Amino acid sequence: MSEESTPGPKESPPAQPRAGSREVWKKGGRLLSVLLAVNVLLLACTLISGGAFNKVAVYDTDVFALLTTMMLLASLWILFYLLRTVRCPNAVPYRDAHAGPIWLRGGLVLFGICTLVMDVFKTGYYSSFFECQSAIKILHPLTQAVFVIVQTYFLWVSSKDCIHVHLDLTRCGLMFTLTTNLAIWMAAVVDESVHQTHSYDSSHSNTSHLRLALDPERAGSSVGGDCSCNTAICQIFQQGYFYLYPFNIEYSLFASTMLYVMWKNVGRLLASSTHGHGHTPSRVSLFRETLFAGPILGLMLFVVGLAVFIIYEVQVSAEGGRLQQALVIYYSFNIICLGLMTLVSLSGSVIYRFDRRAMDHHKNPTRTLDVALLMGAALGQYAISYYSIVAVVVGTPRDLLGALNLAHALLMIAQHTFQNVFIIESLHRGPPGAEPHDTTPKEPCHGLTFANLDALHTLPGCPPTPRLVGTNPVGPHEAVAIILAPRGHWRRRCLKDISLFLLLCNVILWIMPAFGARPHFSNTVEVDFYGYSLWAAIVNICLPFGIFYRMHAVSSLLEVYVLS
Amino acid sequence: MSEESTPGPKESPPAQPRAGSREVWKKGGRLLSVLLAVNVLLLACTLISGGAFNKVAVYDTDVFALLTTMMLLASLWILFYLLRTVRCPNAVPYRDAHAGPIWLRGGLVLFGICTLVMDVFKTGYYSSFFECQSAIKILHPLTQAVFVIVQTYFLWVSSKDCIHVHLDLTRCGLMFTLTTNLAIWMAAVVDESVHQTHSYDSSHSNTSHLRLALDPERAGSSVGGDCSCNTAICQIFQQGYFYLYPFNIEYSLFASTMLYVMWKNVGRLLASSTHGHGHTPSRVSLFRETLFAGPILGLMLFVVGLAVFIIYEVQVSAEGGRLQQALVIYYSFNIICLGLMTLVSLSGSVIYRFDRRAMDHHKNPTRTLDVALLMGAALGQYAISYYSIVAVVVGTPRDLLGALNLAHALLMIAQHTFQNVFIIESLHRGPPGAEPHDTTPKEPCHGLTFANLDALHTLPGCPPTPRLVGTNPVGPHEAVAIILAPRGHWRRRCLKDISLFLLLCNVILWIMPAFGARPHFSNTVEVDFYGYSLWAAIVNICLPFGIFYRMHAVSSLLEVYVLS
Repeated sequence: MSEESTPGPKESPPAQPRAGSREVWKKGGRLLSVLLAVNVLLLACTLISGGAFNKVAVYDTDVFALLTTMMLLASLWILFYLLRTVRCPNAVPYRDAHAGPIWLRGGLVLFGICTLVMDVFKTGYYSSFFECQSAIKILHPLTQAVFVIVQTYFLWVSSKDCIHVHLDLTRCGLMFTLTTNLAIWMAAVVDESVHQTHSYDSSHSNTSHLRLALDPERAGSSVGGDCSCNTAICQIFQQGYFYLYPFNIEYSLFASTMLYVMWKNVGRLLASSTHGHGHTPSRVSLFRETLFAGPILGLMLFVVGLAVFIIYEVQVSAEGGRLQQALVIYYSFNIICLGLMTLVSLSGSVIYRFDRRAMDHHKNPTRTLDVALLMGAALGQYAISYYSIVAVVVGTPRDLLGALNLAHALLMIAQHTFQNVFIIESLHRGPPGAEPHDTTPKEPCHGLTFANLDALHTLPGCPPTPRLVGTNPVGPHEAVAIILAPRGHWRRRCLKDISLFLLLCNVILWIMPAFGARPHFSNTVEVDFYGYSLWAAIVNICLPFGIFYRMHAVSSLLEVYVLS
Repeated sequence: MSEESTPGPKESPPAQPRAGSREVWKKGGRLLSVLLAVNVLLLACTLISGGAFNKVAVYDTDVFALLTTMMLLASLWILFYLLRTVRCPNAVPYRDAHAGPIWLRGGLVLFGICTLVMDVFKTGYYSSFFECQSAIKILHPLTQAVFVIVQTYFLWVSSKDCIHVHLDLTRCGLMFTLTTNLAIWMAAVVDESVHQTHSYDSSHSNTSHLRLALDPERAGSSVGGDCSCNTAICQIFQQGYFYLYPFNIEYSLFASTMLYVMWKNVGRLLASSTHGHGHTPSRVSLFRETLFAGPILGLMLFVVGLAVFIIYEVQVSAEGGRLQQALVIYYSFNIICLGLMTLVSLSGSVIYRFDRRAMDHHKNPTRTLDVALLMGAALGQYAISYYSIVAVVVGTPRDLLGALNLAHALLMIAQHTFQNVFIIESLHRGPPGAEPHDTTPKEPCHGLTFANLDALHTLPGCPPTPRLVGTNPVGPHEAVAIILAPRGHWRRRCLKDISLFLLLCNVILWIMPAFGARPHFSNTVEVDFYGYSLWAAIVNICLPFGIFYRMHAVSSLLEVYVLS
């Protein structure tokens, strides 16, 4: 609920003639929809978290019923919205150029397709023992498939809309759809944590740790009452849908961020559809202008990381004492990768210290959300790292694994910090070639018509060696472009390299935890220090945010790459 | 990190001439200080939460050492700030009229004095067994006393400052002081939860619930190694400081909100010291203009509530089967109180539907923070209520206590929702007598010079029965005031009554949980449904926010009372 009702300088011009159509109090409408969302979300949160604990008499069918109802309602509202905007041409007078960029919508479609495959697997899995199963368990993936298709189409066509009819209803509808996505995310995260705990329990079945969930009765109910999954096809379905969970999780989060931006844009007034800083990159520059060092190094790390991940998974799940070796390999790779990323992010920030592009101060809900999410999601990994540091420093055993764990935690904090600083600074830079306007001493050298070229060198704030192409009558803007081009070039190439390198590293660091690497539990330092139940609570709550951070950083770095 | 860098219309005039002194990128400086604060806070959070669990090898002396260091550093920075602003007269060119209102500063001083008394008690308590105690346990309350005195003076004189020198250093210093206050708050909340768990354990010592904390060894260490608190004076000190904890908690939170507003105001440019909507109330109107119904009813509820609280505490701590009766009395009083508050808040919102005062759209960090805190802190009580509802609805036993619990939880949600809507709408109203400027159809009837008085009635949007005092030549503004006065009067009186009533009710609803009423555990519905450890985690995390909500609502309602 930030104070944004005073329109910025770029937005005020159209506000005066259209004052009649403007809301008296925008925050009032927002307040109502936020209250609706908060209440629905808390109810879902209660049921989902209650369903995760086996001592509590809330069952997964209750959760499925709630989610199915929410998805049906949200789909109905989306259809109503699409119908209305098609029939009323004045409903969307403005479109926000920053909202729903192509990489976000592309990612949404990609993850949406994977979610559909997951729904097919889930339906197949539950159909294997149809007779002894509650009908809601088959209805749930089918409803989810419908919901994903409707929502993806809706976000593809409408994510840039600034709608101006039925403001309160639209806000409530958007918030409800957002809440539905967050509830699906929570359910998926909890389901995965329970699954992880189950596999941890089965591998440590001789230990007497406290268990978060899954006593035999509950484990029995999750594979279908008194039936069990014995056929080969059923096993494949079960394995398959657990590997597709990460995509479903990312789909929900991508959809949530786009819905939030749409919600912020309801009733918003923009100067025109060709907004001053549209940041639309030229298609030619997309696939050139890198030094190739960044992508090549990034790809190498990616391949090595995949190999390390597979070795780790094989050695951890294998019987015998290879655990120590697997952890050393895993931590060593992570330390090298995080160290390189920290250095590269730092050098990116150093390059910006020599960059004279203006900061972009325009209102931009998409960017504000990106910054808030980067900072907020990093908290998850920060928290895990600080708990690890305290455990290693205060705990007694000092061995190689403890040292690696400490270095890993410290570098994780440094890497998140410097990467966030780099990304946030990048997102706030103006488009390439834009010089600061507000520093008055530099103004004259751009406004000159270059009548006296020698005088140009004596002006303050002008580049000392402008490579002017004679005195042929080019317009002043072109001349400025020629002056600026050689200086900006190596910096831009470097920045593009840096963003590609960081992007690839973030992808591999997303894959590892998203597909099940849990050195937090294989490594016994923290489990012994905090006890299993406390450490499991910390990791299971914080790690989903850490995983989300990686994917969100990838989408932000793609934006940085395109814009720099 | 909201988008506020585009200055509002009221703020832009002075920004142009002083553009040279303006920061290039305000968010960059904020980013650095937020990163500092997040890291310090997470480190403190790790140590404090680790110290609360007896299985973890982090001891309370570690936490005390960290807090003492933080308080010393923060005090040093505050002294440096005070010295610098005294010596450099240009450091604070503007003062924010909204920041640090007198009731917030008064509350701060009041809670600060109580904290000093608590520190005296704590020092006395730990001095009783000085020889077998770590020195840090006596150093900690002494440092806290110094810190409270320095910080209270600092906030009293500087809370309105918009400082314009050493921007980044000031931001970091303010954020560090804010973090210190939040760490003190966390430590106090955790300490109180452990104390509550201890007293719960000693009263249920025959049950075999899982315990959050406090095994005999830890309990022994908290009263001083191998010594024990046997003397009468030591017992008094111990009892006393536990009863003064709530004031220390509120002190930290009040200081945090004021520091946050100061942080938002660093480097801010304002139009002038006499800001357009200063909202300074006339002293005459402060103590009149109520219908007396609100304060009288509120005082009655306050006294009855105090009696109910004392009865509840006595009956719960007494031996024997009076628990059921105590809970029935407690819930009945709460249901009546919450029901009345809901109705009164609703009627306040209805009154606003007939109110034609303009909405205040000016940028106001204090108000933005108030709204965010009201909405955020309400989440704590919402969460507890939803967990209670699920436990009662899904759980099997249907008796009187279950019904009362359900009604209580539902009314709690309704009361928080409607009270928030009422307060937030009140805070956004313009000063009394200000009519909307932006609705063009209503404009002519105020701009008229009243040449033809009969025509006035036919204009849309004008009051139908203006009591004009003849046709004597009063200026148009005075005439408008006369027209509006009788209409505004009863509404203003009603609003003042409503805010006073809600204020008194919030005070009594703050006293009950803050001084130790925990029907959540006396009542066995949720404990049986969720298990003790899960329910204790939910209540111990969410209830501090619920308690903070009450005190914050009191300060906001005081503002509503003064302004309406």
